[in-house]
Amino acid sequence: MSDTTCHMSISLDGFVAGPHQSREHPLGMRGQELHGWHIGDPRATTADREATAWLMRPRGAYIMGRNMFGPIRGEWDEDWHGWWGAEPPYHAPVFVLTHHTRDPIHLDGGTSFHFITDGFAAAYAAARAAAGDGGVDIAGGASTVRQALAAGVIDELTLDIAPVLLGAGERLFDGIESFDFEPVEVLHSPLTTHIRYRRRA
Amino acid sequence: MSDTTCHMSISLDGFVAGPHQSREHPLGMRGQELHGWHIGDPRATTADREATAWLMRPRGAYIMGRNMFGPIRGEWDEDWHGWWGAEPPYHAPVFVLTHHTRDPIHLDGGTSFHFITDGFAAAYAAARAAAGDGGVDIAGGASTVRQALAAGVIDELTLDIAPVLLGAGERLFDGIESFDFEPVEVLHSPLTTHIRYRRRA
Repeated sequence: MSDTTCHMSISLDGFVAGPHQSREHPLGMRGQELHGWHIGDPRATTADREATAWLMRPRGAYIMGRNMFGPIRGEWDEDWHGWWGAEPPYHAPVFVLTHHTRDPIHLDGGTSFHFITDGFAAAYAAARAAAGDGGVDIAGGASTVRQALAAGVIDELTLDIAPVLLGAGERLFDGIESFDFEPVEVLHSPLTTHIRYRRRA
Repeated sequence: MSDTTCHMSISLDGFVAGPHQSREHPLGMRGQELHGWHIGDPRATTADREATAWLMRPRGAYIMGRNMFGPIRGEWDEDWHGWWGAEPPYHAPVFVLTHHTRDPIHLDGGTSFHFITDGFAAAYAAARAAAGDGGVDIAGGASTVRQALAAGVIDELTLDIAPVLLGAGERLFDGIESFDFEPVEVLHSPLTTHIRYRRRA
C-alpha cells in the first residue's frame, strides 16, 4: 500500500540513540539495548517476530538522514557505502538527506542510495515518485523523523518502547508540538512494547 | 497483597504534568489530556475501565509529594485539606513528603494525611507499618516517584502512555539511571496504552 510509514525503537525516556554515536557505536552508547527484539535477543517472542515482520516488510522507497547512512561528517568519503555491506536490507531506492553532493550508489539486491541536498520536501517528493504504489518509509534517525512529523506526511508510526532508560542521546520528539495519531494495535513481550499508531482521520 | 505499586499517566514524550502547575491547573497546562481515560472521556473503552480498576484498587497506605497534595508552598495554610473534598478516594493513611511540619488530618471514609519532614525513607517505613498486608502505593508526583525508584522499593509500575506530546513540564524519569522492570501486561485503547511493569526477579 502507498502509506508513508515510520518504525522506530525508542527508550522509555524517549531516546532513539544513545550519546557518543560513532563508527564503532552507530546507535550510541547503549543504543543497541533498544534493538534486541529484532536483532537476535534469545528472549524475543512471537510478538517480537510479528513486529519484525512489520519493520521488514517491503517498501517502495526510503528516506534517511546522513547520520543513519554513516558516521562520516563533512565531505564524503567515497568508499563509504552504508553500514549494511554489499546487499543492504532495503531492496529499493533510499534517499539520503545531506548537505554534500554525491553521485548515486547502486548495490546488490536493488538497493540504491541517492543523495539529496535540497531538504526534506525534495527528498519526500523524489521518494514518492520512486515508490509508485509501494509507499515510502521514513527510516530515521531522529532528526529525519522530526522533519517528517513536522511535514505531516506520516500515516502510520510504530514505536517499539524498550524498558530501558538511556538518560542521554537523541530524543525523538524534541520540538514536535503535536501528535495527531492514535494507537490502533499493540503487541508486547518482555523486551519491548510495540505500539502501532495511525494518523487521525 | 503487600506489593509496593505505582501507577502514573504519562505523555509519549515522558511528562507526567504540564508546565505552570497552579491551584486552577493542578496538572499543569494540558496535563489533564493524560487523564481522560479514567476521568470520563466518552471514548474510554473496556481496556481503560480495567486499567481504572487497577488504579483504584484499595491499598494499605499511600505516599505522595507535597505538590500532589496541594498548590501551597512554604508554610501550611491549615484550611487546605487536599484537592479531593471531604471524602478523598484513598480510604487509608496517606504520607505526604514536606519540609514543613503539620498535625495529621483525618477525613471521611478513612483517609488521613500525615506530614513527614524527614525524607522518603522515613515516609516509606511509616507507610509500610501502617499498610500491614495492604501494600503501599506511591501516588506521585514525579519527584516522589523518582525517590521511590532510586530507593528500589517499587515492585509494580504501571504507566498509561497517552498519545500526546506536552513538550514541557515534569519528566518522570529525569536523573533515573536504571530501570529494572519488564512489561508483563499491556492493555490499549485509542486514549492510551496501559503497560504494567514488574520488577525483575
